[in-house]
Amino acid sequence: MSGDLPERAGALLDAVHSRAPRVHCLMNTVVQKLVADGLTAVGAIPSMTSSVEEVGDFAAMADALSVNLGTLDGARRQAIDIALDVAMRDGKPWVLDPAHCDYSPKRAALAQGLLGRGVSAMRANAAEFALLDVPGDVVGVRTGAQDVVRLGGRVVEIGNGHALMPKVTGTGCLSSAVIAAFLAVEADAFVAAVSATLVMRVAAGMAGRTANGPGSFEPALLDALANLDAAWLAEHGRISDAES
Amino acid sequence: MSGDLPERAGALLDAVHSRAPRVHCLMNTVVQKLVADGLTAVGAIPSMTSSVEEVGDFAAMADALSVNLGTLDGARRQAIDIALDVAMRDGKPWVLDPAHCDYSPKRAALAQGLLGRGVSAMRANAAEFALLDVPGDVVGVRTGAQDVVRLGGRVVEIGNGHALMPKVTGTGCLSSAVIAAFLAVEADAFVAAVSATLVMRVAAGMAGRTANGPGSFEPALLDALANLDAAWLAEHGRISDAES
Amino acid sequence: MSGDLPERAGALLDAVHSRAPRVHCLMNTVVQKLVADGLTAVGAIPSMTSSVEEVGDFAAMADALSVNLGTLDGARRQAIDIALDVAMRDGKPWVLDPAHCDYSPKRAALAQGLLGRGVSAMRANAAEFALLDVPGDVVGVRTGAQDVVRLGGRVVEIGNGHALMPKVTGTGCLSSAVIAAFLAVEADAFVAAVSATLVMRVAAGMAGRTANGPGSFEPALLDALANLDAAWLAEHGRISDAES
Repeated sequence: MSGDLPERAGALLDAVHSRAPRVHCLMNTVVQKLVADGLTAVGAIPSMTSSVEEVGDFAAMADALSVNLGTLDGARRQAIDIALDVAMRDGKPWVLDPAHCDYSPKRAALAQGLLGRGVSAMRANAAEFALLDVPGDVVGVRTGAQDVVRLGGRVVEIGNGHALMPKVTGTGCLSSAVIAAFLAVEADAFVAAVSATLVMRVAAGMAGRTANGPGSFEPALLDALANLDAAWLAEHGRISDAES
Repeated sequence: MSGDLPERAGALLDAVHSRAPRVHCLMNTVVQKLVADGLTAVGAIPSMTSSVEEVGDFAAMADALSVNLGTLDGARRQAIDIALDVAMRDGKPWVLDPAHCDYSPKRAALAQGLLGRGVSAMRANAAEFALLDVPGDVVGVRTGAQDVVRLGGRVVEIGNGHALMPKVTGTGCLSSAVIAAFLAVEADAFVAAVSATLVMRVAAGMAGRTANGPGSFEPALLDALANLDAAWLAEHGRISDAES
Repeated sequence: MSGDLPERAGALLDAVHSRAPRVHCLMNTVVQKLVADGLTAVGAIPSMTSSVEEVGDFAAMADALSVNLGTLDGARRQAIDIALDVAMRDGKPWVLDPAHCDYSPKRAALAQGLLGRGVSAMRANAAEFALLDVPGDVVGVRTGAQDVVRLGGRVVEIGNGHALMPKVTGTGCLSSAVIAAFLAVEADAFVAAVSATLVMRVAAGMAGRTANGPGSFEPALLDALANLDAAWLAEHGRISDAES
């Protein structure tokens, strides 16, 4: 079942390179630069505006959206609302990243509500997942020491990765945005999410070979994301079926 | 006509180093850190406050301003207005970067209006330039695969550069801010803009020699900006007359 | 008097590693990523939300706070107020970083007021210190070419360090946040502040050995912060008594 997924991930990476999907991000202010650079590295075109005046125009030009709840404020709540209205109207795929919703009951409640607005996939860590009830038709990507992707009873575990990845702020947020880029070129949301997650973890493995710590890991990760190709992904990517 | 421009660029770089001009930036939230680090690397002193309460004080202390329209919201619109009132009152030079105005008609309209408020230079990509009517007395810097600097009928093309430069989010925004730093030490806005653009492209060429991708290119670019000197610029800088 | 401080700094670094204190930052938008990565590198857990709706929840979960006045606006002023109410109610230690208060009289006045709200330590440069009246029971950390830590008549100077450190935007802001992390594990605020400052300067010295400029210095600093251990700190850390 999971045997051909690395090859499919490679084909989708080629598709992202050739189609250069626009990904609009409602992104926390901490990691906007890393997410923009990472999206560019995989071949997508990022944008980041969160203002209520302009987010509708940006969402309308995008092929997919990534909605991240980090450093959330009232204006970004409104902007998310406007952007998702556009996404639902136009049938654009979008990803939810309920960053740090375990710190704030208000944020967790917002995340739960957003899960009912046509989301394709949610990426979160275990603490965030534990608080949210993910609908059966939404792909769940739980990242951590292992990354597990689930849709209903279909569950795979992604191998590769590196211990320095969680030491760099924003690699999770970037993973969510890369999932959005892959959703823009692949209608099967499970395959898109698995592929994007594999791209991140294979790149992390490449970066880990030269990094001396979290500081040098970050530029190495961006280099790896830019230099990774379909053949490398198919050969080195590790995906296994997991217990449901 | 363009033959002595690399030497003049070197002399201006020395002037920036010795005078350490203060550049206040009304900057999108994505690339504030890169722009601050890049300005520091060329010898300028950056500041970034966008609040309506304080921006007037910061603008009053600055020698030049860089106004970037990325991730624009209502508060930054107001802050830009206040800062430009100070700049016009005190005769401070300023640069417009109409980032992503091709995504939003509101932003393009704002950019057009700002071009009437005493701007010295505008730096933009081709898509952004196509939407705006630049007054004849404003230096236009169009960056992309080639960088072209124009003032009325005077047009030069800047050589050097590297293909990884547009793969790093914010290198264009930084170029605009560096133009502002050079405007602070040189009254001829055309020469200042050419010099700053050359500094960025020569540094990019230096960075490209050691970079393995966009991730390692960014710190290498900052190193090159800090290590570049007048003699290197005069020897390696390439500027040619272009068709008007 | 200062002879055993490097050993104590090493023991506190071990304590930060093992206890992983949560540090909530009210942080300027320019350097949030660097501060988050640097806190993670020393073993702390950062958070950065500044919204008035959520900052109370985040402050309540934190072990210490770092309040930085860079890129201040009305919303962050309010958020600081809410967060400090929580800190004072719960007796959490917090650090003030009056960034750029020398640019704005309003900001200097705010900083002066905040010094009366139970602050443990203030870190600032000489220009900022000159404007503020620091109460006698507040640890003062003045950073620059030399770093001096003072509490009443007790004054030490921290050695180590590197000339590239002030060329990277946000290393001062990060120093303040690292002081907060050490305050979370040590009740003697003077020892905590000295230890955190020493960690930053020893890491800077390590980073300076491989850096080619400010761009490569930053990831090397993060690597050094992550790789530094108690034994290295005790052996290489330099602290001397200074004139009061």
